[in-house]
Amino acid sequence: MFPKPYSLRLFVPSDLGRDVGVVLDKSQSHYVANVMRKSAGERIALFNGRDGEWIGTLQEVHKNHCLVHVTEQLRPQIDEPDISLLFAPVKKIQTALIVQKATELGVANLQPVQTARTNAERLREDKMELQVLEASEQCERLNIPIVGELMPLQQALEALEPERVLLFCNERLTGNGAGDVIPALAAAQKWAIVTGPEGGFADEEIAMIAARPNTHAISLGPRILRAETAVIAALALLQAFHGDWTS
Amino acid sequence: MFPKPYSLRLFVPSDLGRDVGVVLDKSQSHYVANVMRKSAGERIALFNGRDGEWIGTLQEVHKNHCLVHVTEQLRPQIDEPDISLLFAPVKKIQTALIVQKATELGVANLQPVQTARTNAERLREDKMELQVLEASEQCERLNIPIVGELMPLQQALEALEPERVLLFCNERLTGNGAGDVIPALAAAQKWAIVTGPEGGFADEEIAMIAARPNTHAISLGPRILRAETAVIAALALLQAFHGDWTS
Repeated sequence: MFPKPYSLRLFVPSDLGRDVGVVLDKSQSHYVANVMRKSAGERIALFNGRDGEWIGTLQEVHKNHCLVHVTEQLRPQIDEPDISLLFAPVKKIQTALIVQKATELGVANLQPVQTARTNAERLREDKMELQVLEASEQCERLNIPIVGELMPLQQALEALEPERVLLFCNERLTGNGAGDVIPALAAAQKWAIVTGPEGGFADEEIAMIAARPNTHAISLGPRILRAETAVIAALALLQAFHGDWTS
Repeated sequence: MFPKPYSLRLFVPSDLGRDVGVVLDKSQSHYVANVMRKSAGERIALFNGRDGEWIGTLQEVHKNHCLVHVTEQLRPQIDEPDISLLFAPVKKIQTALIVQKATELGVANLQPVQTARTNAERLREDKMELQVLEASEQCERLNIPIVGELMPLQQALEALEPERVLLFCNERLTGNGAGDVIPALAAAQKWAIVTGPEGGFADEEIAMIAARPNTHAISLGPRILRAETAVIAALALLQAFHGDWTS
């Protein structure tokens, strides 16, 4: 992929295939024409989460309207591993980091959960949608993670299929190092990670999570990690052993 | 450590011990008195990177001058694993994230390196010093990572002791998944990680790093990780298997 055969990569809802014409919406057209200052004849990449990644040539470039002639498939569709992230929203900038980094690290579902100590600030799911879109375009994913609406922790836990293996990042925990637990887990198709708010989970929340079948508590070391650091660390370990980072 | 016996944690250069009196400097006194609005009689934690972590009582609280009476040791001194991070500075906010996250994740040395594609923006080592201090206080480290001055990649590589095991995060690499490579490495006392700039390392840089003895290239999966995400992921994996995250 170096050097890349395109200078810009966009998610589009349209079907993609050889010789298809794709009309970019107003916001993407503005980005292509005015922000990135592309011209007709330049090549860009498109993906839609279904048909893989395609390259196309900009045929018309206007600030409200761009037309792309799709020519050739770069990569077939491959889905990311089925990993759900249940996370307690924190401050705005940190929540944005969680959303961006979890997308880069290949989660399939981003599920914000309300916990006893979750910051009550209103969660902007619409902003999160934009953040996952931008991060997906940037990190060369072939799909877009699904962003759930904020729901109580208990409801989110109950919504997990019983066979889904849940990694429980509990900052109060001693022992059960992530490097001991994660590689030793049996292979599974469906995974989830749950991380808490800055103040940690409340006692009754810890008991509720731990009581779920197929749940494995992990420790992320002796230092106190910020919420977004814990998300990245846990996802990296999961991907390295049970996801798509293996050779 | 829950609930904590203090509400504030500060690094001080002074020696710490039972019944020692510690005078906080002007900036810390302002923080304690005006920002955190502490009063005489409240308990705070102090560490200096040598004598472990101590608790003390605020005896005098003024905006320019606070006096702490040190009473009892909470934890003896334990040093973090000997991990050096060689990283190419990126944009200001991302560099700040690298510094903060690497501190949380327990690096001993933060060494910014100049690479062919490093953003030329002047690096503020003084700001980095403040960021590591704040992150160390927050994450409950018992010491402060050392921040090096920006130096060319080649010089930083040559400064590594030959026996120091270097993990080379190369985004162009396929194969050699981090989850395969890292757990399989023999135990070592000294570790390092090198991560590149946004545009990746240049060919001659890749050759130079790969030619170093005791160097292991690792892949962090099929998606393109931002510089700070790669740092966190690589550090998490190293700590989980060869650092202080094991049970």
